[in-house]
Amino acid sequence: MLLGLRLLLRLRGSISSAAASFQRTQYSLFSSTSSAMAATEESLRKALSDKQSAVEAQGNAVRALKAAAAPKADIDAAVQSLNALKLEKTDVERQLQSILSSDGGLSREAFRQAAVNTLERRLFYIPSFKIYRGVAGLYDYGPPGCAVKSNVLAFWRQHFVLEENMLEVDCPCVTPEVVLKASGHVDKFTDLMVKDEKTGTCYRADHLLKDFCNEKLQKDLTMSSEKAAELKHVLATLDDLSAEALGAKIKEYGITAPETKNPLSDPYPFNLMFQTSIGPSGLSPGYMRPETAQGIFVNFKDLYYYNGNKLPFAAAQIGQAFRNEISPRQGLLRVREFTLAEIEHFVDPDDKSHPKYKEVSELEFLMFPREEQMSGQSAKRIRLGEAVSKGIVNNETLGYFIGRVYLFLTRLGIDKDRLRFRQHLANEMAHYAADCWDAEIECSYGWIECVGIADRSAYDLRAHTDKSGVPLVAHEKFSEPKEVEVLFNINNVYIYPVP
Amino acid sequence: MLLGLRLLLRLRGSISSAAASFQRTQYSLFSSTSSAMAATEESLRKALSDKQSAVEAQGNAVRALKAAAAPKADIDAAVQSLNALKLEKTDVERQLQSILSSDGGLSREAFRQAAVNTLERRLFYIPSFKIYRGVAGLYDYGPPGCAVKSNVLAFWRQHFVLEENMLEVDCPCVTPEVVLKASGHVDKFTDLMVKDEKTGTCYRADHLLKDFCNEKLQKDLTMSSEKAAELKHVLATLDDLSAEALGAKIKEYGITAPETKNPLSDPYPFNLMFQTSIGPSGLSPGYMRPETAQGIFVNFKDLYYYNGNKLPFAAAQIGQAFRNEISPRQGLLRVREFTLAEIEHFVDPDDKSHPKYKEVSELEFLMFPREEQMSGQSAKRIRLGEAVSKGIVNNETLGYFIGRVYLFLTRLGIDKDRLRFRQHLANEMAHYAADCWDAEIECSYGWIECVGIADRSAYDLRAHTDKSGVPLVAHEKFSEPKEVEVLFNINNVYIYPVP
Repeated sequence: MLLGLRLLLRLRGSISSAAASFQRTQYSLFSSTSSAMAATEESLRKALSDKQSAVEAQGNAVRALKAAAAPKADIDAAVQSLNALKLEKTDVERQLQSILSSDGGLSREAFRQAAVNTLERRLFYIPSFKIYRGVAGLYDYGPPGCAVKSNVLAFWRQHFVLEENMLEVDCPCVTPEVVLKASGHVDKFTDLMVKDEKTGTCYRADHLLKDFCNEKLQKDLTMSSEKAAELKHVLATLDDLSAEALGAKIKEYGITAPETKNPLSDPYPFNLMFQTSIGPSGLSPGYMRPETAQGIFVNFKDLYYYNGNKLPFAAAQIGQAFRNEISPRQGLLRVREFTLAEIEHFVDPDDKSHPKYKEVSELEFLMFPREEQMSGQSAKRIRLGEAVSKGIVNNETLGYFIGRVYLFLTRLGIDKDRLRFRQHLANEMAHYAADCWDAEIECSYGWIECVGIADRSAYDLRAHTDKSGVPLVAHEKFSEPKEVEVLFNINNVYIYPVP
Repeated sequence: MLLGLRLLLRLRGSISSAAASFQRTQYSLFSSTSSAMAATEESLRKALSDKQSAVEAQGNAVRALKAAAAPKADIDAAVQSLNALKLEKTDVERQLQSILSSDGGLSREAFRQAAVNTLERRLFYIPSFKIYRGVAGLYDYGPPGCAVKSNVLAFWRQHFVLEENMLEVDCPCVTPEVVLKASGHVDKFTDLMVKDEKTGTCYRADHLLKDFCNEKLQKDLTMSSEKAAELKHVLATLDDLSAEALGAKIKEYGITAPETKNPLSDPYPFNLMFQTSIGPSGLSPGYMRPETAQGIFVNFKDLYYYNGNKLPFAAAQIGQAFRNEISPRQGLLRVREFTLAEIEHFVDPDDKSHPKYKEVSELEFLMFPREEQMSGQSAKRIRLGEAVSKGIVNNETLGYFIGRVYLFLTRLGIDKDRLRFRQHLANEMAHYAADCWDAEIECSYGWIECVGIADRSAYDLRAHTDKSGVPLVAHEKFSEPKEVEVLFNINNVYIYPVP
């Protein structure tokens, strides 16, 4: 049996002290702080809708009195009552407005813009190729940004590679097609795109739907609470929507191209890899790697040999990764080129204990297990050892890396109250994965996934074994070959998102 | 007036103690050790040719005696004399063979192969994507290779960026076409290519000519010394040949495709940049940067502002660069993706003094000025201060960086007897350049350029000013704007070439 473990670490978010952050921005089923607020919002929407009905009813009553030429005193009383109702309605409206705007509104936006301006002026980072009007999703780091990045990468190498005796590799970005065909990226590394049917401008289909829902929820105060719930459900399940379902929603809501208001095409998949051609013949297609992990997998055999043909061992790689995003957004969060740091930890699938597990098992921090998310509860502080022993976290090795990631992030300066480990729901995980946890950091864009830690069986090794014909397996004294991988990504090691 | 200074540092060669190196491999007009050897070779070729004539003449004499039925004693004496001549000829042949093989032959080749095998087996570096049979010109660094690379880069950052207070930037590899159009790469960053006319296989035209000449020189012992001199001249002027001249030579020597012996097409330019497309529309062409310097130039305005609108200042960048070589060769020396470290130092063109010049002016090391190269002399030890004061090195700032590069390389462990600074000949420099020096390291491939240090005026800033319309100039209190750039590249920071 082959089994795997994949940790994916994407460190994004506030590292610099200049980077403050606000409460969540995105509506989410899973936000730890959103339950109370959502309850208030819902009751306010209901109250507003009730007041609106009351105002309408009273308005009709006043008109009826006037039509019936009722006594002036009666009419005056009715008008006064109408005015009082209107005032009450306005008051509820203000309360709702205030909740929505503190939650996703202008003040946060303004603050972020101010922070971004400062960071740009001080050359922490700036849009690339500015004198040529820039390219969306590409950023330069200036002197202070380079210093921060260099320190974070050095700390990453110290904390993970050196302290854990990992085998570091450094592979090229240019990758031949066969490798990414095997990994599934050529066929499946896509986002759904729609085109303005007249101008040909491209949009990410889910972004348009998301923006529509968010704007509607924020600006349409008279929406029924049922409708609001529906839109929130759409937002929460956005990632699961098929091309057809997404197309149907876009049609149902009458969403058009943002600038031109032209009709949109049906959604279709667009591959996010930058394509190129290797060598002079033009016959060898290649891609800029979308992740660094594949360089580890294809070297598994050599690394295993280098490790004395013994499990467990971990391999690590830091380097550039490239994703040709349809519409880059959220500043440094969704960019077209970034630095990734990944770890693959290969373990015996029948023995996922970890010798250093004791060093982290007493750590206690915010965890957000699957069940709490499903039942609408919020994240809570759990002792790591308890989470593992109760089976909330699948195994010791996975637990160990969750603990190490917690230490890495908090030592970097992440506020532990704005850091949580969220378990993937069943529908978020690949079928071959055993358990996945994301480290999420709460920043001005809400709770953002920064690190992925996953036990994903030996899926990747098996894929390359099948494609290359070279068996990427580990032989133990036991009865059968076994492996496990663990993968970390550090993505955009800092600092702060541009709007 | 705008003026510039560009230092280009490419550190390649032996850093690890595992990497020993032999005497020069390439025939070159400029080799410091080649003069004596070349003289011996030439006299041996001449002696061999004389002996050959003598053997032929004596053979004819023997045949004539036999035909004339001369006395046996006379014939025996003539035959004895012929045999003696043949022995002498064989002896000269052996001497020539020995010189050619110690100079470029099997023993060095075998040693290099042994070193390469060791480095590969210990995962210093290995061909990338090996399980898919690899891609020429792409290499992975394994754990010890990563450690060396990481240490060299850290030392580079310490020695140059930190000690000199340089402004570091970190720009993306994906670059829009307009930037590389301005820099001249889109139009001129090409190599001449020929195609097998039947199979379509591509070759670098100058490589075919070079290989032809080298093989001829090594294997054809009966070649006249004039012919040998001609081939050596071709080798020495290879870089200057136009497409037409290269094509003419290929025709003249009857060079065909190496594997098939099919005829070859005329040489034509092939752009060495990896092309790609940015964004989903397919309408924005882009390239993977072939050097990191352009990212500094396009940010000149911001960096100048960051430096308090003052000259001089230096900016530095370390990162990946990409060149789609037609035929990668010499192991890590000519690859398709590598790490570059570049510095651009911007100075007042009317004041190229350097405040820290005194710290390096007493250094003494091997320099190979233009005149010594032209007059057939070899490199000699010169005190840097003397070279600057005599005007051999154009100015103090250029001299300062030559000294700093010398310190960097020798502190890294480069043998100072295998390190020389060679000045560019007039025909090697761009018309706008004032002076250029290459640090060359003698390794198993001969004297290899590792660092380029050039005063190249403000050419690059001017090109981007013209294209972008954004003035990239420095304003001093003096009468007019001035700049200078200096650029360093570290390329393939280690270790040892594969054959």
